[in-house]
Amino acid sequence: MSNILRIKRSLISVSDKGKIVPFAKDLAKEGIEIISTGNTFKELKKNKINVKKIEEVTFFPEILSGRVKTLHPKIFGGILANKLDQSHARQLKQHSILEIQLVVVNLYPFKETIKISNNVNKCIENIDIGGPSLIRAAAKNFLSTAIITDKDDYKKVINEIKKLGGISIELRKFLALKAFKKTMQYDNAIFNWFSNKITKNQEEYLLLEGEKIDDLRYGENPHQAASIFSFNNNKKRFFKQLNGKALSFNNLNDLRAGLSLLAEFKNPTAVIIKHAIPCGVAETNNIYNSWMKACQADELSAFGGVVALNGNVDKKLAIKLSSIFLEVIAAKAFSKEALEVLNKKKNLRVIKILGFKKFKKEKPQSIITMPDIFLVQNRDTSNITKKNIKVVSKKKPTSRELDDLIFANKVVKHVRSNAIVLAKNKITLGIGSGNTSRVDSVNFAIQKSKRANSKNKKNFLSGSVMASDAFFPFPDSITLAYKAGVKSIIQPGGSLKDNLVIKEVDEKKLSMVFSFKRSFSH
Amino acid sequence: MSNILRIKRSLISVSDKGKIVPFAKDLAKEGIEIISTGNTFKELKKNKINVKKIEEVTFFPEILSGRVKTLHPKIFGGILANKLDQSHARQLKQHSILEIQLVVVNLYPFKETIKISNNVNKCIENIDIGGPSLIRAAAKNFLSTAIITDKDDYKKVINEIKKLGGISIELRKFLALKAFKKTMQYDNAIFNWFSNKITKNQEEYLLLEGEKIDDLRYGENPHQAASIFSFNNNKKRFFKQLNGKALSFNNLNDLRAGLSLLAEFKNPTAVIIKHAIPCGVAETNNIYNSWMKACQADELSAFGGVVALNGNVDKKLAIKLSSIFLEVIAAKAFSKEALEVLNKKKNLRVIKILGFKKFKKEKPQSIITMPDIFLVQNRDTSNITKKNIKVVSKKKPTSRELDDLIFANKVVKHVRSNAIVLAKNKITLGIGSGNTSRVDSVNFAIQKSKRANSKNKKNFLSGSVMASDAFFPFPDSITLAYKAGVKSIIQPGGSLKDNLVIKEVDEKKLSMVFSFKRSFSH
Repeated sequence: MSNILRIKRSLISVSDKGKIVPFAKDLAKEGIEIISTGNTFKELKKNKINVKKIEEVTFFPEILSGRVKTLHPKIFGGILANKLDQSHARQLKQHSILEIQLVVVNLYPFKETIKISNNVNKCIENIDIGGPSLIRAAAKNFLSTAIITDKDDYKKVINEIKKLGGISIELRKFLALKAFKKTMQYDNAIFNWFSNKITKNQEEYLLLEGEKIDDLRYGENPHQAASIFSFNNNKKRFFKQLNGKALSFNNLNDLRAGLSLLAEFKNPTAVIIKHAIPCGVAETNNIYNSWMKACQADELSAFGGVVALNGNVDKKLAIKLSSIFLEVIAAKAFSKEALEVLNKKKNLRVIKILGFKKFKKEKPQSIITMPDIFLVQNRDTSNITKKNIKVVSKKKPTSRELDDLIFANKVVKHVRSNAIVLAKNKITLGIGSGNTSRVDSVNFAIQKSKRANSKNKKNFLSGSVMASDAFFPFPDSITLAYKAGVKSIIQPGGSLKDNLVIKEVDEKKLSMVFSFKRSFSH
Repeated sequence: MSNILRIKRSLISVSDKGKIVPFAKDLAKEGIEIISTGNTFKELKKNKINVKKIEEVTFFPEILSGRVKTLHPKIFGGILANKLDQSHARQLKQHSILEIQLVVVNLYPFKETIKISNNVNKCIENIDIGGPSLIRAAAKNFLSTAIITDKDDYKKVINEIKKLGGISIELRKFLALKAFKKTMQYDNAIFNWFSNKITKNQEEYLLLEGEKIDDLRYGENPHQAASIFSFNNNKKRFFKQLNGKALSFNNLNDLRAGLSLLAEFKNPTAVIIKHAIPCGVAETNNIYNSWMKACQADELSAFGGVVALNGNVDKKLAIKLSSIFLEVIAAKAFSKEALEVLNKKKNLRVIKILGFKKFKKEKPQSIITMPDIFLVQNRDTSNITKKNIKVVSKKKPTSRELDDLIFANKVVKHVRSNAIVLAKNKITLGIGSGNTSRVDSVNFAIQKSKRANSKNKKNFLSGSVMASDAFFPFPDSITLAYKAGVKSIIQPGGSLKDNLVIKEVDEKKLSMVFSFKRSFSH
């Protein structure tokens, strides 16, 4: 039983007093002596718990408005002594230091304070000094001392004391790990606040911090281990799953891609993602039509896709959605009847999206890791509208073409570079993505369009528009697009050969606008 | 001058004693009283510096093998008192506490100890308790106290004391921020070690920690802010830049992609990357030939590419490399003559690669951030050789075809899904990447091959091999490849329709092997 630590004496100093009274009562009932500070002492005393004031141990008063209470060798000696070391035992005796086997501390609410207060002095006053010192001392000495920093652990501890007569080494290790995590997170919050508010010296240091929510079955491939982490302590997510198998790594990445694209649109819009690239996007006046058009844009690719809709799914739409094989359906909301339809497919992942707007923000930044270093960048929040483009051709786009250009440009931003999008009536017709030469992307976007519309007898590309994520280095892409039926083009401009490109546009009697914003995405 | 803190008394307790003697001498010369602990006291005394033992202040000895030295209200009161608060001043007087305006502390070498020792007790003994308490107390009270945690700051501080008669508020803020960073990093190291060694509870919590090396000019696009961070305090990088403009965000990402691919090869191999995708790869018996073949594989795409070579660049190769426009040339080494040739192009980024092997490891993990959550996964370190594949067709691949299959499979692993690679004689002929339908990727790989080899009159695809990063859902891709001249195929297998796919392979008298490893990359 040497792995069980018998508790004779406990120090309790808590800022958050939740659950502390019943716990202290339980400790007292087990014959454990309690030492306590300031307000904790008062609270316990008020509840008729037998408790000793810390001054009775240190023979030194609390001073400096509570800044110095526990920082005394009589306390730290009692916590830090190695209870197996005889010389330590002798020294405790010599200096009349009492052994403390259990430390219960939670910290001044620094994080909570900075959230509600801009008063710098008040925030500084909430930087706890004694608390982290006690916590770290007890955690370091977990072989001889137990440390509780979380009120949710009171029950575990009292249960062991009742059952085992003390606290097991396993629980002490668990509690010590939690303790170091707490002090690390606490100082992380202080550091971030300090660098923001005091030195205004932001981001010289980056710390990405997360709690694991779950291990994923695997990553991009079955032989890659992967996990999902939460930025928040509350483990919030931007979605709620209503049906189906657990989301895979690739599902989540596709959802990210789909919602980033969807966040560009206000009108009812449907997006279908495969391999983190859109294969069909449509913006219409109602979400049912948008889905029908997006799906028809490339039915072959839509198979097994991840769908994102910025509208509500009713029964009629649910029936349509469930008529083809999809991996994930994400939407703003689902009617009860729609869910009844979709839930019949046990595996179909049905996702309610909770935060569209979050996908419009610069943060969280994206991160690319490599050996030794990593790159961090803000997300691309650029927004191209009719107001910030410029017609550079002799011919002006028609009003319908303008709408299509803006639409196609929103989509091309989310296609892998080199990216080309062909569209008409706010429906994608062909998407060229991930090619190492721009003219290949134009060529393949046209071919995909033909493949996807092979049943369609009309010349469906006639009157279409084309968006490019970066400038055209040569006029050859224009010639190809013209032959396919494209009438208007949007691109950032900026090539050395812009004049040749514009010349070709004018010769072919097309129109072209510059967006002045490149939108590479790799 | 109220922003200048006059220093009358200083506490020095340092584990790393570098530079401390001259600094303490300087302080003493300025009439500053010095209080010190154990070994620091001895070191200063030995050097004839006038110094007071901490026990003379606390009237309490160091106890518990040095575990408790400074944790005393006479010390913390002196550090934490608000020097503008009259009630604080009265309390100091009442308890005969001496004001301390300067704290100089560095911590037990925990990180260094865990690197060299597996002795758990020794590591635990190196968890500093008093040090972080002093540091945090002084940093919290930066309005009244200065804290030095880095010996490189001694000079800054003594210069101000000499020049201004004290330490400015700006410097105190800077030092306090550094102090909180230090305690945060210290506890981060303890937490990680503890979770690894003591609770074996790894990665429930992830903390990505980095020092900013530089702000990049911009990210993927000019309107995105981006920075480069180092995982290490020593700011090590996997490369050394020998010439040219600063590496851009996209250059670095391309380098990452190129070196990840290059790390698959032992023989002399050349890789050309555009938009984080390979556009030409060749493996031969010498690096000159590899470059020539890789470049010829798709000359159009190679323009403006990032080149990675696992060999040494001599003058002959340098002349060839500098004959086309490239963004980056990365290689194992460059001869003096080669550098003379390359350095003539002022902008050309010339990179010496320092750590190929680092690109073969599972860590650092890759990270995908999104609102609320982020995904973390190990890198794909799978290695497909002749030993772990299985022939599933009636016909067996020839020895030459087998070599090409392994080659093509190494490349396809690093192409965006859906990925198809056509190759022959260990040279890529056509790369289909980033398509939402697999048959599109096959089709476009063939077309790219034709476009890239248009000058080549022979039927260059005849006798080639094809690699696919995931299974073929239908036999249509096989038919297409057959018609183009492909003779052998490698793919992971695992489709419901594998039997139909194999049937088509057999009917067309092709050979096919399964790798049993999918290699999606998005």
